[in-house]
Amino acid sequence: MPEHTRPARGMRDFLPEDVRRRDYVIAVIRDVYQRYGFEPLETPALENIETLMGKYGEEGNKLIFKVLRRGEHEAAGGVDLALRYDLTVPLARVVAEHRGRLPRFFKRYQIQPVWRADRPARGRFREFYQCDVDAIGSRSPVVEAEVCAAVTDVLRALGFTDFVIRLNDRGVLTGLLDAAGVPPDQHAAALVALDKMDKIGPDGVQRELERRGIVSPALGATFSDLAALGDGQADRRAANRAAVDRLRDRLKSQADAAAHVETLARIVALAEATSAGEHVKVDATLARGLSYYTGAIMEIAVADLAGSLGGGGRYDGLIGMFLGEDIPACGFSLGLERILVVMTERGMFPPGIERAAADAMVTLFEGEPIEDALRLAADLRARGIRVETYPEPAKLGRQFKYAADRGIGCALIVGADERARREVTVKDLDTGEQGSVPRDAVAEQLMSRARRAPGPRV
Amino acid sequence: MPEHTRPARGMRDFLPEDVRRRDYVIAVIRDVYQRYGFEPLETPALENIETLMGKYGEEGNKLIFKVLRRGEHEAAGGVDLALRYDLTVPLARVVAEHRGRLPRFFKRYQIQPVWRADRPARGRFREFYQCDVDAIGSRSPVVEAEVCAAVTDVLRALGFTDFVIRLNDRGVLTGLLDAAGVPPDQHAAALVALDKMDKIGPDGVQRELERRGIVSPALGATFSDLAALGDGQADRRAANRAAVDRLRDRLKSQADAAAHVETLARIVALAEATSAGEHVKVDATLARGLSYYTGAIMEIAVADLAGSLGGGGRYDGLIGMFLGEDIPACGFSLGLERILVVMTERGMFPPGIERAAADAMVTLFEGEPIEDALRLAADLRARGIRVETYPEPAKLGRQFKYAADRGIGCALIVGADERARREVTVKDLDTGEQGSVPRDAVAEQLMSRARRAPGPRV
Repeated sequence: MPEHTRPARGMRDFLPEDVRRRDYVIAVIRDVYQRYGFEPLETPALENIETLMGKYGEEGNKLIFKVLRRGEHEAAGGVDLALRYDLTVPLARVVAEHRGRLPRFFKRYQIQPVWRADRPARGRFREFYQCDVDAIGSRSPVVEAEVCAAVTDVLRALGFTDFVIRLNDRGVLTGLLDAAGVPPDQHAAALVALDKMDKIGPDGVQRELERRGIVSPALGATFSDLAALGDGQADRRAANRAAVDRLRDRLKSQADAAAHVETLARIVALAEATSAGEHVKVDATLARGLSYYTGAIMEIAVADLAGSLGGGGRYDGLIGMFLGEDIPACGFSLGLERILVVMTERGMFPPGIERAAADAMVTLFEGEPIEDALRLAADLRARGIRVETYPEPAKLGRQFKYAADRGIGCALIVGADERARREVTVKDLDTGEQGSVPRDAVAEQLMSRARRAPGPRV
Repeated sequence: MPEHTRPARGMRDFLPEDVRRRDYVIAVIRDVYQRYGFEPLETPALENIETLMGKYGEEGNKLIFKVLRRGEHEAAGGVDLALRYDLTVPLARVVAEHRGRLPRFFKRYQIQPVWRADRPARGRFREFYQCDVDAIGSRSPVVEAEVCAAVTDVLRALGFTDFVIRLNDRGVLTGLLDAAGVPPDQHAAALVALDKMDKIGPDGVQRELERRGIVSPALGATFSDLAALGDGQADRRAANRAAVDRLRDRLKSQADAAAHVETLARIVALAEATSAGEHVKVDATLARGLSYYTGAIMEIAVADLAGSLGGGGRYDGLIGMFLGEDIPACGFSLGLERILVVMTERGMFPPGIERAAADAMVTLFEGEPIEDALRLAADLRARGIRVETYPEPAKLGRQFKYAADRGIGCALIVGADERARREVTVKDLDTGEQGSVPRDAVAEQLMSRARRAPGPRV
């Protein structure tokens, strides 16, 4: 009775075509992030459990995969390790641990899987990749503008044109909640309700607020009003200016919140000097789920995806939990799986990405020295050509069909005749044409063939 | 009281310089494997626990990281998932699960971390990367020869010249044990003892055999004799021929084992037609730890490393445990960490790998419009240049020092004068020289600078 072969619940196997798509997107993301001076960081999949517990809220604690102690402790059922839940908390730990070895303004990218024991759903998996950029060490709004620009360049390089970077600020939200008479200890609950504005609408939010015991008649109206900020404006820049002016007016009597409005205005102005200018939209209803944000928050929306492609914000307090001294930080996380879902549905992958596993296949047949074929393969590979070898002697027709089925455009034959003439028969499996090529000229012919059919190397 | 910041025991954080080295090695491995027609595969970090248990022997079971059930089951302390322990068992599961979507001869590479709760030691971690190639579907010795050639090309591309691919066959070992009178149920224990030949010598092996209750006066002598197979031969090919002849002679009366000797001889002959020819060494004392091997086994030795850089072999029965029908398979696993240890100690990394995070840094200073600087950075990045932006206005000297400390060779200044003349001041931070460059010509100048200081792009 054979064993079960399915991957575990919510997990996926990535076959070659899947990996090529994933690697293509990751390569684009990495290239853009490097252009912004972000440097690579990797952290272990397993963290001490104390490092993760309590950082993601009550709901997060439940979704963390916990690892049993080993050896003599195993029977007691205790846990000591947990699987990485996001890339931000490990970054905060790393910055605290390696402070002396890192530059004052540490800018890192990190592209690694995280694990959450969420209920699996369309586009939601228990193992998924986050692609993060974070800039540590500065409170300057230049950081937010650059992070928005980097994310914009990534999405544009992948072929996205229609996305919106929704932009808000936690300090602005605090000011609005204060103004609406929501007591501070209800702010978190109110933000969770308001975060659903785009899903359930103003009436739904009002009911959700009441359900949570938040009785502020002004609040629902305030936010449905702010949701329409800048609507009807001719262009995005005018809309953003109108939105900022409206926030200025509403919050002018609250010094803290008013300062956050000015920072928001500055971020928008700086972003407009970059590629992000066409995509940034001030949206005072954006709330974001995580509790550690302290300033700007951002989220990327596209029309045909209910969730977001990614999000981020400023978190000036998180590193302090590890270091004992606050260090400002701001970052953005792109969700690889969400990006792949949209790109697949829209057919956004470049044609060359589905290319065959090899440029040519060397055939083997009974009675001929296999060593000759292997030598030919070795010579071609040394020239950088990707060569498959049919692993065992078989009828040539069968080998041609195998190569053609796999999309390999070219078969190479070294029989007794060819060997005597120091030649190779090159058969084009697309056209069926074949011809003799001097042994030394095969590599050049295959390379010019490959140049005619370019595709991204992944 | 700040929280602990160390990574978990046996785990490591990889700072940018570490990631660059790792990515360099991985890129070389991937490139070579692709030249052989291997295709990428990735599997989840978490597997159902039944998939892994019982595949790695008693010792392996203990070293598997096990994950607690979640939600209502958490309190009961049961486990349902486990962290990937190697890449071979998941491959066998994938081949059984996706058989219909995979080519008949499925050749895959897989470069992913695995986790083992081993006692940490020099070069031994609890999270480490394996870089595997496996060829599924053929019993032909061409497969072994090609796998040895692929691994050879990887190591040569990384700069290794002095490695030996030790080659043996489980069927040969079985024949030798039979001939020495060791009963079949003691073969596994005998192989564990014999596997230590290079560490403890013939006398040590003899004692180890006795300790395990294996009383074969002939056995120790047989193996110390075979360990010297081919010694004193002028060259490797002659040594291999001598070794094979000796095995032929010893095993000529045992049909099964004799067939394995002929396969071994064929693998050597085929490997000699490839780059592996200079490295393959028949070594009848090689045993390998894992129980699933059924034919050829290989292991890579270098003089200055006690363990091996990697190993592999043929395992024609493992996929059958999942599929219910045997499918032949053979593969090789390179250990990324072992390779990195040796390359670091020997200083084998190319000089360009330690390059700075950016090609140039745009400065910001008080009173000047930051937007201009961001626009310059955006234009240069659009041309593919890696540009850091100093995030906040500061004295220029301080900014120059920051860039120079980070190895960034060039600072860009857009002040009021420059702006008026549509120019940028380009300061070479290595020489201290600076000059004005027309705004439109900065990209070209930086690109020619980058061409003069090439390094691998990772």
